[in-house]
Amino acid sequence: MKFNPNLAQIKVYEGGKPIELVIREYGIKPEDIVKLASNENPFGVSKKVENALQKAAKNVYMYPDDSMLALKDALSKKYQIKNENLIIGAGSDQVIFFAVNAKSHPKMKILTAKTTFAMYDIYAKQVGATILKTPSHQHILSEFLEIYEANKDIDIIFLCLPNNPLGECLKREDVYQFLEKIGSNTLVVIDGAYQDFASAKDDAMHIEPSDLINRFQNALYLGTFSKSYALGGLRVGYGIAQKEIMDTLYKMRPPFNVTSLSLEGALAALEDKDFLSKSIENNFKEMKKYESFARENKIDFINSFTNFITLLFSDDMSSKECAQILLKKGIIIRDLTSYGVNGIRVTIGTPAQNDRFLEEFKKLL
Amino acid sequence: MKFNPNLAQIKVYEGGKPIELVIREYGIKPEDIVKLASNENPFGVSKKVENALQKAAKNVYMYPDDSMLALKDALSKKYQIKNENLIIGAGSDQVIFFAVNAKSHPKMKILTAKTTFAMYDIYAKQVGATILKTPSHQHILSEFLEIYEANKDIDIIFLCLPNNPLGECLKREDVYQFLEKIGSNTLVVIDGAYQDFASAKDDAMHIEPSDLINRFQNALYLGTFSKSYALGGLRVGYGIAQKEIMDTLYKMRPPFNVTSLSLEGALAALEDKDFLSKSIENNFKEMKKYESFARENKIDFINSFTNFITLLFSDDMSSKECAQILLKKGIIIRDLTSYGVNGIRVTIGTPAQNDRFLEEFKKLL
Repeated sequence: MKFNPNLAQIKVYEGGKPIELVIREYGIKPEDIVKLASNENPFGVSKKVENALQKAAKNVYMYPDDSMLALKDALSKKYQIKNENLIIGAGSDQVIFFAVNAKSHPKMKILTAKTTFAMYDIYAKQVGATILKTPSHQHILSEFLEIYEANKDIDIIFLCLPNNPLGECLKREDVYQFLEKIGSNTLVVIDGAYQDFASAKDDAMHIEPSDLINRFQNALYLGTFSKSYALGGLRVGYGIAQKEIMDTLYKMRPPFNVTSLSLEGALAALEDKDFLSKSIENNFKEMKKYESFARENKIDFINSFTNFITLLFSDDMSSKECAQILLKKGIIIRDLTSYGVNGIRVTIGTPAQNDRFLEEFKKLL
Repeated sequence: MKFNPNLAQIKVYEGGKPIELVIREYGIKPEDIVKLASNENPFGVSKKVENALQKAAKNVYMYPDDSMLALKDALSKKYQIKNENLIIGAGSDQVIFFAVNAKSHPKMKILTAKTTFAMYDIYAKQVGATILKTPSHQHILSEFLEIYEANKDIDIIFLCLPNNPLGECLKREDVYQFLEKIGSNTLVVIDGAYQDFASAKDDAMHIEPSDLINRFQNALYLGTFSKSYALGGLRVGYGIAQKEIMDTLYKMRPPFNVTSLSLEGALAALEDKDFLSKSIENNFKEMKKYESFARENKIDFINSFTNFITLLFSDDMSSKECAQILLKKGIIIRDLTSYGVNGIRVTIGTPAQNDRFLEEFKKLL
């Protein structure tokens, strides 16, 4: 059978091993597993969310409310925008997909940092787009600008602020100055999946979606419930942009793209502000442990504005081997070899999880 | 801003009004609403599913198991297939999307019955495909064959068996004879969203996925948990095909496309065989009420192999008006005017819901 030629070059995404397989394969007790690989909230789910889900479980025989009115109203209030500026996706992933397809044409070009969120490339490859990348791993706006000016016809620029999987961020004013130089036909996606963390650490990094889209008609802001709001399993994210962009994104949205329980969970999560602030507070308090450890042991790290920290290894140490050894002890972290980086990304966990990681990691130095 | 030209012609899908709006707009008490519009299971969710969801609610901070191993194993056992023949989607909708994109190219053509599931067209339009339709509303294989033979290069043929929103079905042997005549480069999608109902009513309609894909390398079978399994809110469906087709569908699948609670719910639903058989038994017992009513009142109906019945009106009665009048009384059914059919589709509900509908409907005759 003949298939879509754009797909020939795509490698199928191989999911990480579920914890159950690690348990079985290495004979580790479930309570001894420390998973710091997916930037999940280490405090688990908010009690308010758990209760809301339990209450709503009896209604899953009905299709979701496809207008998503309750969640849209709550998000519009939070961000001081109109519902018409909002689209809700099955994770912000899905909004990236909508955006790529909304701008897609046979000679499409996208521009990203060398090392950034993997889904930008995957969705771009699905539509056969040319992918341009900056020479540096981290976001350097002058490099973006140089490539943009050499290729005026770039369809989408992705800025991941702060950046997954490296952790760096850019100052709002620098981003705004950059945006001033970009033409109105180039969609600029500001992926704010970790903005809650960045804003809490340094207000200069904070990008307010309403401010962004009012100043820049070609900007699309992305947010998610998977990180600070602790709903990774429920797949809820959103995009915020001017109505002109929204109207086209909606043409790609399949009906009922978010489950009824996901809508309920996200609504409850938005209401639990205590849980959110405690999660962020723990994050930066615990991150200091990693920073002190790294300084003491002369390990490079990237100043992180997220809920993870990226440790960069010197040539005498292999991140791949390190990840393998830790895995056998039940500690799951993310090796960055596949990104061309000899380093690891470690989610900031609970105090006990972080202590356990640092203790085992120290043995490898 | 310039957008993907394929999207220019697409009308944004407008979801039905949530029950809450009907309540507010017409001042009807929630307990008086009878929703027979979305082919949901009128008995609500299985207790086993509800319990499984409540138990799993505390884990939604973790990303779903993207290998979906537990649900795949259960489905493979049910259908006597291998996991490699299976893909799980956010509803069978998403598998339709994967299929259209897997076969997409600039001169793509698809073929469907005149009146059938709306998503075939919507996904085809997104990729700019030409959509061919049979002259008759219902599935007539000779019409499909005639169009196929006049256009040997058709990329996908969709057979919705039984057909939503009309309810008719085709005999397995006739479908197999048709498939014998279709070339190996044409993907034939057998949408079995309502097959549980059809198989229970008449074994001659039953299509067993393993049998289908072993005989026809170019067939893709679709199933869903939204109808007989009562999980419309959770968005879980699946595709079954030979590995060659699967390998390309997987290239379109976004990671974590099914939520963790949806996976748990589907697994529990598969185990509750009693709930399934009672649901199907009620369906055909109650459908007889509709058939008797229609015969007594000289209303045409389509012999239904699903959990709904389609009533066809003569010219002196407007389905649009009928639906409006019923809505004001809190009875929500599906008007088929937008499909070019002067008729209504009514989901078979609980005995009390069906009696209420028939009582109010009779007043309009």
